[in-house]
Amino acid sequence: MTTTKQLNTYFQERLQEEFIRQEPQSLYDPINYLLEVGGKRIRPLLCLIACEMFGGDKADGFWPAVAVEFFHNFTLMHDDIMDEAPLRRGRETVHLKYGLPSAILSGDVMLVKSYQFLEKCPVALQPVLYRHFSQVAVDVCEGQQMDMNFETMHEVSVEEYIQMISLKTSVLLGCSLRLGALVGGASAEEAAQLYEYGKNAGIAFQLKDDLLDVYAAQEDFGKIVGGDIIRNKKTFLLLKALELAEGKYAQQLDFWLHEGEDMPDKKVEEVTKIYNALSIKELAEQEINKYYQKALQAMDSLTIDPSRKTILNHYMEAVMNRKY
Amino acid sequence: MTTTKQLNTYFQERLQEEFIRQEPQSLYDPINYLLEVGGKRIRPLLCLIACEMFGGDKADGFWPAVAVEFFHNFTLMHDDIMDEAPLRRGRETVHLKYGLPSAILSGDVMLVKSYQFLEKCPVALQPVLYRHFSQVAVDVCEGQQMDMNFETMHEVSVEEYIQMISLKTSVLLGCSLRLGALVGGASAEEAAQLYEYGKNAGIAFQLKDDLLDVYAAQEDFGKIVGGDIIRNKKTFLLLKALELAEGKYAQQLDFWLHEGEDMPDKKVEEVTKIYNALSIKELAEQEINKYYQKALQAMDSLTIDPSRKTILNHYMEAVMNRKY
Repeated sequence: MTTTKQLNTYFQERLQEEFIRQEPQSLYDPINYLLEVGGKRIRPLLCLIACEMFGGDKADGFWPAVAVEFFHNFTLMHDDIMDEAPLRRGRETVHLKYGLPSAILSGDVMLVKSYQFLEKCPVALQPVLYRHFSQVAVDVCEGQQMDMNFETMHEVSVEEYIQMISLKTSVLLGCSLRLGALVGGASAEEAAQLYEYGKNAGIAFQLKDDLLDVYAAQEDFGKIVGGDIIRNKKTFLLLKALELAEGKYAQQLDFWLHEGEDMPDKKVEEVTKIYNALSIKELAEQEINKYYQKALQAMDSLTIDPSRKTILNHYMEAVMNRKY
Repeated sequence: MTTTKQLNTYFQERLQEEFIRQEPQSLYDPINYLLEVGGKRIRPLLCLIACEMFGGDKADGFWPAVAVEFFHNFTLMHDDIMDEAPLRRGRETVHLKYGLPSAILSGDVMLVKSYQFLEKCPVALQPVLYRHFSQVAVDVCEGQQMDMNFETMHEVSVEEYIQMISLKTSVLLGCSLRLGALVGGASAEEAAQLYEYGKNAGIAFQLKDDLLDVYAAQEDFGKIVGGDIIRNKKTFLLLKALELAEGKYAQQLDFWLHEGEDMPDKKVEEVTKIYNALSIKELAEQEINKYYQKALQAMDSLTIDPSRKTILNHYMEAVMNRKY
């Protein structure tokens, strides 16, 4: 088995070869630009780890890995248009640098390219790979639509929120593991268990992100970040607080959702106080743990040699235990 | 075998069943809206005809037929954003009716859905269907990019133009025939010949469109249309004229490309005179014939019972001989 770091280096090097150097340049330059900027490459890494878990060679895992990475970057390119985002990974977003038509069309071709990478996988596996891949692609689009809908909705339940993050983010993590496992030699059932593992761990990660936005920096550096609070972002914390708050807390929360644009520090401080009074941090930790336990159960049910699970378990633990 | 009209009715009725009635509505409504508006359904019809040519049942041809129709409509939804088009088939375009984010995201999911329809085809055929489909999807994106590039390019050769219309329009017609033939029982070679047929006929159709814009109405109704001339659209006629014009014709053409916005009728009249002087109409007819003959050759090389070719030949002839 290869270490996580080695797999990452392997992927990065081979990814270079997939930069598209063909005409029309104006179609392919934006793709290379976005891939060049980097990112954590979590999805391809999960794919390669899962492939090796079942005895597959990382060279076999590369094609689904690059497929999920292209797919993920396609979603970033289009989401950045929809969200009118000026920056991505610290650099100008594609639609600002190359224009709206290019960002739409290069994203489209990137999605198609992600399907084309699956053509390099064994023919006998292709129908099932395409099927899982398409289902997750639909899920991700539905998740993005729900996320956009939430912005203008008055009431969003915690349940709806978890469904949204599951569709928008977690299923692709699950799918990365599933495709890697399948090309690595896993049975359909084993691959499905890894999908469950990845999906539930993904929900836990996203909830952890919500938590860290408010509580991470406070603990580690003694400063408050709270970007989500400032932007009234409907995270688990806010939705849970809206669900539980009564009386003066409900009034205060309502006040800060409509006021305080001119005093962001005060807003973060006051909303955090409400969260503390309502034990939102503990509730979030419980929820995170609930999904992480679900993930671990799925892993436990995998009847392979436990030593083969080590790399994935360690990688996931590291991500789960991050402090910022 | 079923008549063209019967196949069209069959497709229309079954397409209704594929209207997506699931959540989130805001993602699927734009898709249903665009499909509802209609269109000529040329691509699914070609797919069904090709399926029956090789003895397949139209029910088998339906899935690739709906895949190509969804794909085509996905391109319309995104192209209309890029071209800032206000109307499509006489109704408001999706991005104007539902907003830019919806038009991007609903287009994306429509592309994925088109892949999902291929899952209904026989498993053994799926890898090859996906492969042809993805290749053509990339081609269409490249063609659209070339088309956009042409708008700001000073010099575009007739050769580049033909390559562009081939990628943007014709290969999808070829692909519709190919996928239909494959599910109908054709060999890979037979399906490839039908693809060649469709691709070349498609180029001929597009050139015919260019010709009719200037010459159709003139012959049939005694009036001039010339929308392409008014918009300086780089069609075969204009590019050929720019290639051939010398001396005063070159000067006149250059003049009308930069002036005359306030006198469109005069502009159409004068540019048409230049076209006439340079025999552009005859040259276009020769070019159309060249590609149509290529198409017919591909059809001739198909060693199936000639009676099985009748429906496709008649359908194509009707399209080729249209006067407006």
